[in-house]
Amino acid sequence: MRILSGDALKCASVSELKEFCEQLREEIFRTVSVCGGHLSSNLGTVELTVALHRAFDFPRDKIVFDVGHQCYTHKLLSGRADRFHTLRKEGGLSGFPKRTESEYDCYDTGHAGTAISAALGIAKARDIKGENFSVIALVGDGSFNNGLIFEALNSLRILNTRVLIVLNDNGMSISPTVGSTHEVLGELKAGEAPLEDVKLFERFGLRYVGAVNGNDFDQLLPALSEAKELLKTTSVLLHVVTKKGQGYPFCEQAPVETHGLSPRPQSGTEYSAALGEELTALAAHDGRIVAVTAAMTDALGLRGFFDAYPERAFDVGICEEHASVLCAALATQGMKPYYAIYSTFLQRAFDEIIHDVCGQNLPVTFCVDRAGVTGADGETHQGVFDLSYLSPIPNLAIGVPKDIGEFRAMLRASASYPAPFAIRYPRSGREGKVEKVEIGKFEVLHSSMSDIAILAAGERCVRMGERIVERLKGEGKDAALINARFVKPLDEQLLGDLPQRHIFTLEDNVLAGGFGDAVARYYRNSGRKVHAFGYADAFIPHGEPASLARRFGLDEERILAEIEEIYARG
Amino acid sequence: MRILSGDALKCASVSELKEFCEQLREEIFRTVSVCGGHLSSNLGTVELTVALHRAFDFPRDKIVFDVGHQCYTHKLLSGRADRFHTLRKEGGLSGFPKRTESEYDCYDTGHAGTAISAALGIAKARDIKGENFSVIALVGDGSFNNGLIFEALNSLRILNTRVLIVLNDNGMSISPTVGSTHEVLGELKAGEAPLEDVKLFERFGLRYVGAVNGNDFDQLLPALSEAKELLKTTSVLLHVVTKKGQGYPFCEQAPVETHGLSPRPQSGTEYSAALGEELTALAAHDGRIVAVTAAMTDALGLRGFFDAYPERAFDVGICEEHASVLCAALATQGMKPYYAIYSTFLQRAFDEIIHDVCGQNLPVTFCVDRAGVTGADGETHQGVFDLSYLSPIPNLAIGVPKDIGEFRAMLRASASYPAPFAIRYPRSGREGKVEKVEIGKFEVLHSSMSDIAILAAGERCVRMGERIVERLKGEGKDAALINARFVKPLDEQLLGDLPQRHIFTLEDNVLAGGFGDAVARYYRNSGRKVHAFGYADAFIPHGEPASLARRFGLDEERILAEIEEIYARG
Repeated sequence: MRILSGDALKCASVSELKEFCEQLREEIFRTVSVCGGHLSSNLGTVELTVALHRAFDFPRDKIVFDVGHQCYTHKLLSGRADRFHTLRKEGGLSGFPKRTESEYDCYDTGHAGTAISAALGIAKARDIKGENFSVIALVGDGSFNNGLIFEALNSLRILNTRVLIVLNDNGMSISPTVGSTHEVLGELKAGEAPLEDVKLFERFGLRYVGAVNGNDFDQLLPALSEAKELLKTTSVLLHVVTKKGQGYPFCEQAPVETHGLSPRPQSGTEYSAALGEELTALAAHDGRIVAVTAAMTDALGLRGFFDAYPERAFDVGICEEHASVLCAALATQGMKPYYAIYSTFLQRAFDEIIHDVCGQNLPVTFCVDRAGVTGADGETHQGVFDLSYLSPIPNLAIGVPKDIGEFRAMLRASASYPAPFAIRYPRSGREGKVEKVEIGKFEVLHSSMSDIAILAAGERCVRMGERIVERLKGEGKDAALINARFVKPLDEQLLGDLPQRHIFTLEDNVLAGGFGDAVARYYRNSGRKVHAFGYADAFIPHGEPASLARRFGLDEERILAEIEEIYARG
Repeated sequence: MRILSGDALKCASVSELKEFCEQLREEIFRTVSVCGGHLSSNLGTVELTVALHRAFDFPRDKIVFDVGHQCYTHKLLSGRADRFHTLRKEGGLSGFPKRTESEYDCYDTGHAGTAISAALGIAKARDIKGENFSVIALVGDGSFNNGLIFEALNSLRILNTRVLIVLNDNGMSISPTVGSTHEVLGELKAGEAPLEDVKLFERFGLRYVGAVNGNDFDQLLPALSEAKELLKTTSVLLHVVTKKGQGYPFCEQAPVETHGLSPRPQSGTEYSAALGEELTALAAHDGRIVAVTAAMTDALGLRGFFDAYPERAFDVGICEEHASVLCAALATQGMKPYYAIYSTFLQRAFDEIIHDVCGQNLPVTFCVDRAGVTGADGETHQGVFDLSYLSPIPNLAIGVPKDIGEFRAMLRASASYPAPFAIRYPRSGREGKVEKVEIGKFEVLHSSMSDIAILAAGERCVRMGERIVERLKGEGKDAALINARFVKPLDEQLLGDLPQRHIFTLEDNVLAGGFGDAVARYYRNSGRKVHAFGYADAFIPHGEPASLARRFGLDEERILAEIEEIYARG
């Protein structure tokens, strides 16, 4: 396709722009259907992004994409069209803004709510250095629930600078947006625009412009001109209403389902489905059980629970911290909260896990989904730190199921467990049947008289351990295989009784502060040798999960070679 | 003193209440002057707390104290007057609410912004269980800048329950409150109460009552009756204006200085003073340097910098997350941000350290004050997790100075360091002179031909190492002593060259994922024995720092005993 840029873009007629947008939409649709990625949010922001590129002068002007998953059109317009077919592929273009990828990407994002803070920092540096360019934050309405956005708005006057906040209001987070802020925006959209709402934004140092239809150039172009003019003297909030999935009826009608697409159907079953089934079944006989999510009810498999027990199900919006405190407080009154969240997003609630949940030793269960290397979304979405940041927290038990059956058993065990409990699991995996797990007890999968024991934490590692044991058998060699169901507490009795001198630990997590360190700490000066395998001290980019796992340290061949070496030494 | 409670309190006349408050004030003043603690905030809330105990029926009704440092009157009124003289002493009453201490304390706090989320959780559990009592959140205006408060307000309607939020507005965080929210509250206070502000609260599902003088029963009692009545059908925000330090002119005039008092002058010099001096000096010759704090300019020693370079100094209020993103963004534009914060509060920015600062490998320097065991404030204020949660983060260097001179040298080194850098240090310590440190290089303090080497991380541990070496010498024994200036990166060259077989690691941090684990990981299967000393897997309560350090694992006698044992074995 021919990309309109520079003067050609600035001089194009509205009809030319519309035609261009259709081509962009087709390109995005074609690419995402092959590479996977975020579809409906990008289809919805094609006109808006084109209009921004027409109105401003990137990369001299700077634009920060909140979350960043809606940056595809921006990538197509900034010299990356020729590589767009490599989107989200290992070594290819990232699905998110990356400063290392293009000077048009001024700030990396992936998690929600950072864009206004980032825009303020960039604008403030501009002022201090006496430079002159425009700074824009493009933020979805879902992020407007997030505390970080509020903290940034609250400091607009303190920082005394100028930014343009483009509120991309499609009424959706990954799930539909909830909360009072959303209701306020709704009224503004409806054109009722109560005085106090507009005044509210001015109170925070923002001139409000809008709401305009973000899929309609006839509204969008003049609104952007007005905003650009105002921006010379004040910060501006431009309220743009877009339709998620615009142009593709099935996306418009199913924005949740088409928010993110995988290139091919996930191999195996989704853990999230099991979470929904087990929790719903448990809740039928246990009135204490409540489920809490931060704007991801469907992705986490809890839609069924929410339908069955609306009075015990809470989606509080993109508010990971608030959700944690809410769970802690519910638990102080005898309720049994289950907080489902992605591993990388739980980082947002780190202080509340310590201060509110574990500090009071409350029976909250964290269902930590998308743990380990997740793949195509890259650095900001890999769940490879959770074992490290959860392990040092007193009172917290950490379960790592080897398959979905074991995950179900852990959920059942958690119902009567009187203290904080985190269960971390990958997106999808094997079924499998486990009747019962005892918290803190490992499972011997294969015992051996050899001097080598493999302790595997979690599904990816247990499967790797199984393959290694099989391959060793083929060579007349052997190793014990232990399913380390719990990273905390460790099964010290089993560890103490292990006859092997060479202990291999496998974890789908960075090595620093993870499972291997915990086992090595237990075995310290015991005469045993701990061979720890996990991820290197690096941010893991996007790519194919198995390939990334291997590249960054969970390498079957290297593990086998180290075992062979031990055999060779005799 | 005679405590008014139950019917006596409910029937007391205003003049009796006033007299009672004077007695409470004297008791608080007398106790804090001996035990240390939070003075001005407690003096300011005596009438408010008495009025709440008169209006409500605790412990049946529940009150959550945001931050919790203003709970002294509540403790005196809830059966703890006889133990009040033990305030903040080891084994005595905590300076914060503690569920384990009294049924009148329904939720533990210590960090800002959790109270409304907690009140909502308690109220929601009440509704689900069909119970009937009132839930109150007492929140200072400083916390109203915090994102967590906003997230809770945003979900009021979603959760569809009833809570009373008492906004205790004294215009102060630890530093004066800043930000637009504060300005809105200011107008309400001034009685100008613009329609849109009151409407704003209603938009979030709150009826606004106030503003009333919280030190005047004639305004307070009727306002509470009104709020209590409204609470039957809706959530309520009662805006109460109090004077921090009320009743003690020197506290009223110096609320910052009298916010928190130490029982006796800190031994040694404060690191914060050195931070202010060094940064101000560096900034004179380096226009890239900016300083950022989250409502603690004075406590962190930055007042001088703020006065000298107001255009490069930002206090964004109690917004630890926003401050981190702001620093990251400033750094993308070539600025050199220094973000000063307490170790325990930095937990709030964990995700932003990973996602924004280290993920983009930006040269932000975190000045992590109050690291290690801090003492009298207890569980929520011990800085014993930072080495564990910072070490797994890629791209981050971590410095642990042995004295203030070394801290200054690290600050100078950071100015030209092109990547993320965290320097963690205790409140106070020794002067000392260090010309230059190289990032990632240790310092040999005492070399030895013995088979024992002590690697000490940070001032408390280096001093302990010095004492141990002295005591060994007295017995004709010896050990090498290394100042492990950097927990990350480790000085692998020095570690590799160490001749000793027995390596003792000392750290003022929990053992899990800390310095000892990192050294043990490096030495794994090297034949060396690592003896790691640090804190146990537990929350460390309030007490005297040296005594707590010993009790929880940094025990000089135990370390010596282990060394003696090695000598005994020969």
